[in-house]
Amino acid sequence: MGKLKIIPLGGLDQIGMNITAFEYEDDIIVVDCGLAFPGDDMPGIDLVIPDVTYLEDNIEKVRGFFITHGHEDHIGALPYVLRRINVPIYGTRLTMALIDGKLEELGMESMAKRKIVRYGMTVTAGSFKVEYIRTNHSIADSAAFAITCPVGTVVHTGDFKVDYTPVFGDPINLARFAELGEKGVLALCCDSTNALREGFTMSERTVGKTIQSIFDENANSRIIVATFASNVDRVQQIINAAVRSGRKVAIDGRSMIRVLGTASDVGYIDIPEGTLITLEELNNYPREKVVLITTGSQGETMASLPRMAASIHRKVSIDPSDVIILSSTPIPGNEKAVSKVINDLTAQGAKVIYQDVHVSGHACQEEIKLIYSLVKPKYAVPLHGEYRHRTAQAGIAADLGIPRENIFLLEAGDVLELDEESAYVVDKVPNGRILVDGLGVGDVGNIVLRDRQLLAQNGIIILVSVFEHGSGKLVAGPDIVTRGFVYVRESEELVDEAREVAYTTISSCQSRGITDWSKIKTEMKDDLSEFLWKRMRRSPMIIPIIMEV
Amino acid sequence: MGKLKIIPLGGLDQIGMNITAFEYEDDIIVVDCGLAFPGDDMPGIDLVIPDVTYLEDNIEKVRGFFITHGHEDHIGALPYVLRRINVPIYGTRLTMALIDGKLEELGMESMAKRKIVRYGMTVTAGSFKVEYIRTNHSIADSAAFAITCPVGTVVHTGDFKVDYTPVFGDPINLARFAELGEKGVLALCCDSTNALREGFTMSERTVGKTIQSIFDENANSRIIVATFASNVDRVQQIINAAVRSGRKVAIDGRSMIRVLGTASDVGYIDIPEGTLITLEELNNYPREKVVLITTGSQGETMASLPRMAASIHRKVSIDPSDVIILSSTPIPGNEKAVSKVINDLTAQGAKVIYQDVHVSGHACQEEIKLIYSLVKPKYAVPLHGEYRHRTAQAGIAADLGIPRENIFLLEAGDVLELDEESAYVVDKVPNGRILVDGLGVGDVGNIVLRDRQLLAQNGIIILVSVFEHGSGKLVAGPDIVTRGFVYVRESEELVDEAREVAYTTISSCQSRGITDWSKIKTEMKDDLSEFLWKRMRRSPMIIPIIMEV
Repeated sequence: MGKLKIIPLGGLDQIGMNITAFEYEDDIIVVDCGLAFPGDDMPGIDLVIPDVTYLEDNIEKVRGFFITHGHEDHIGALPYVLRRINVPIYGTRLTMALIDGKLEELGMESMAKRKIVRYGMTVTAGSFKVEYIRTNHSIADSAAFAITCPVGTVVHTGDFKVDYTPVFGDPINLARFAELGEKGVLALCCDSTNALREGFTMSERTVGKTIQSIFDENANSRIIVATFASNVDRVQQIINAAVRSGRKVAIDGRSMIRVLGTASDVGYIDIPEGTLITLEELNNYPREKVVLITTGSQGETMASLPRMAASIHRKVSIDPSDVIILSSTPIPGNEKAVSKVINDLTAQGAKVIYQDVHVSGHACQEEIKLIYSLVKPKYAVPLHGEYRHRTAQAGIAADLGIPRENIFLLEAGDVLELDEESAYVVDKVPNGRILVDGLGVGDVGNIVLRDRQLLAQNGIIILVSVFEHGSGKLVAGPDIVTRGFVYVRESEELVDEAREVAYTTISSCQSRGITDWSKIKTEMKDDLSEFLWKRMRRSPMIIPIIMEV
Repeated sequence: MGKLKIIPLGGLDQIGMNITAFEYEDDIIVVDCGLAFPGDDMPGIDLVIPDVTYLEDNIEKVRGFFITHGHEDHIGALPYVLRRINVPIYGTRLTMALIDGKLEELGMESMAKRKIVRYGMTVTAGSFKVEYIRTNHSIADSAAFAITCPVGTVVHTGDFKVDYTPVFGDPINLARFAELGEKGVLALCCDSTNALREGFTMSERTVGKTIQSIFDENANSRIIVATFASNVDRVQQIINAAVRSGRKVAIDGRSMIRVLGTASDVGYIDIPEGTLITLEELNNYPREKVVLITTGSQGETMASLPRMAASIHRKVSIDPSDVIILSSTPIPGNEKAVSKVINDLTAQGAKVIYQDVHVSGHACQEEIKLIYSLVKPKYAVPLHGEYRHRTAQAGIAADLGIPRENIFLLEAGDVLELDEESAYVVDKVPNGRILVDGLGVGDVGNIVLRDRQLLAQNGIIILVSVFEHGSGKLVAGPDIVTRGFVYVRESEELVDEAREVAYTTISSCQSRGITDWSKIKTEMKDDLSEFLWKRMRRSPMIIPIIMEV
């Protein structure tokens, strides 16, 4: 009998870009295919997708993508990856509706075979069987998988929390986790996001209560609520509070409108007739009789609430009597942008409520312990989280009695080969991040990024000189053009001096009989660079260009 | 009798750059003169200082700078501002020692008159009297001011907390605040940083206990502690724990060495003889017998701990048995950088402790209430904080019975004119931020910054063409140079096409008899821009350069 290989191709060391391959002999299945959002060190990049060279190299083995839920960090890379690996996609109803929408937007709807899977169903893919198990998360229809092959069963939790009182649907199917545990589970791949947080994540329903009480306390104000578009249950609870309070509801923000449309199509949101009004109709009602649900809770410059905050929203103006709720928490890296939105709204006199109107969608320590205790895996493979989060889960697994040598903190590309007898990292396959910039996928790499960073730091100086072919005589220039360096109109003297430096370098080269252009360019660059460093302690990018006529 | 003017020139809407002028007839005194650190939207900028045009325009009135404490956001702009406004500086001992060090580094020590002020002393400056009152904060020798002029007394808290059990020196002089309150205080300018936090900030001493217990629990490991260099009391407590645990102490990080040198010179830190060792000596002792105190708790790339985390520190390597304490909390905006350091250290197997080993240096709501209740000001002028923090303090002041119309949320440059009868914002003076980049002060403005951001987003394309003088014939080019756009070696086809587009534009211009260079340049830019947008949805900066021979 062969061995099972678990190969994460992303989702470690950073939030986002979740994708893990499971390989048994001639079959590979892939769990999730997410994107990551670019970091501060990736200027101009729109999004980041995983390197799937390993799947391409083994394309004849790949049986399908099994998607745990519809968040971008689990589905967002599909449109890019499908172009190279066009295999069936399996997902629950809302998950698939979101994938459908994504593919339709790109005219790719006829491309991939897609199959909606219900909880409890098992999909056979080569020698793998993948069972969909109900979980709870911050988006409906999230699933965990029991992945069975001849070697044994692996449980992959996807992103999950334990919610005994979910807003929509049933609680996580703990009984099934227990059954699997009783039968014997080889490995558990578990969400690590909140592994550093003690206790138990509160039910989504608690947020509904908080929102209702804010509505009650602010019965005389217009209320604007910003939240994550994909958290349909959250939006449902806001709508419930609005209906109970006799308010009409308007929706704004492209992704909010899109996701709610999708959720509504599949019957996952219940909006009583006569509740919804358009943005244009907002002003036809008394302010205390409306709620506006919107995007931008992460401070995204182009999203709806930040545009209201900056007074550049075309249809909604903030009034000092408004009450604004941020039903969210800043994703790491967005803290300052969110603060700016809060300050801008506060400065317009609005009351902004942003603390404790949110719960996480991820399991805290006690929930992770619960799953481990039910599943009782032989091996632990913490996934989904930074190193510190996965280390924290490893600590929990160890506390629960799993031997340290059976706990694996993998890196992307690691090939963990396992069976009942043993488990080892045996290989490393190609892996990495591919940057998407506009329509370009992968044409911006580290060199281009480094240049962008250098340009941002100190700007650029372009030095153009024209030499006569043959004689090597300077016939025009050196001319200087700068961008992002100094405000030229106020720095004419400096630019003149820089031109003089370049001219001196050319003269010096000519008097020394140097005719090699690349040598002249190097000297121009070095001399000007030294001059500018001495003069102003700056290192702009210097580009000498020589034209020959 | 005239009126008093309070004119904040910075420190509002953002953290940092604290500076407030107080003006009465022919006299101006300035409280603090701080810098701000650049935001993400200011690439390449080293630091930000306030625009002091108003002080320059009234230089004959300015009597001195009164500094509340030695943090960069209160003293950091002095070297720049002194060059234009060379008036005496008044501060407590450690504050002045830090200013001295700053000026000496720049060879400016003979420039400004400086006078050390003890708590309880009153400095007369024109018609102002400034009394120094002891407070507590995250740096020793912090002071509040009672600023008296013929109109009345204003209390300026500086940055403060109420610490009944400070590590060094005495608790805040609450009795003096009470006395002033009894005599009558016109206005209170109070620190707003923590006005959104309930309760009372814990004593600095509680951190000492936490650190000692971490030392006790990790008696067999080397310990590395990163903290703010300026928090001398924190460092003292780490040293105390080390001494109690029989460990030697090494210090690393330029600012840590500098501040501790200064603190030691003025007798503010007590390091038992034989405790300090050099970095080189670290390895001469058993690992469990040493502590390394270092900088980089904010994840600053070039600081000591982040270099250890990235394995590029020249003298210290992380060992899996190390215990690393981050005695700090991430300053907003630094969260991701701090996470990276924690992950890098964790990935090397070290144990990283970073939660609850820090207390704030700023007053929470109950402390703010205490100060208001003692001082009983007629007017409240919340300072030091973002709009939401100052709004929160305004709410506290209102709850304590100060009429809303007596509470002022000022913007930088606002002139608040007040006396016992009334207070109004009567004017706006020049204000703003001056960017410092290398040796350049103010030569990078919004245009240059915007260019830097554009360059970072999509890079630059330079199009060089040479035309013959007179005939207007194209004699060389168009040549294309790009940076930060695409990796040219893998995009030759695209660059060729772009050149073809430029060539076509030139031909088209010539066939239409267009000879105006600026017109030709505009067309080249527009055509290429359109081509690139259609082709790849990107908008690099395009710089057409025409040379004439």
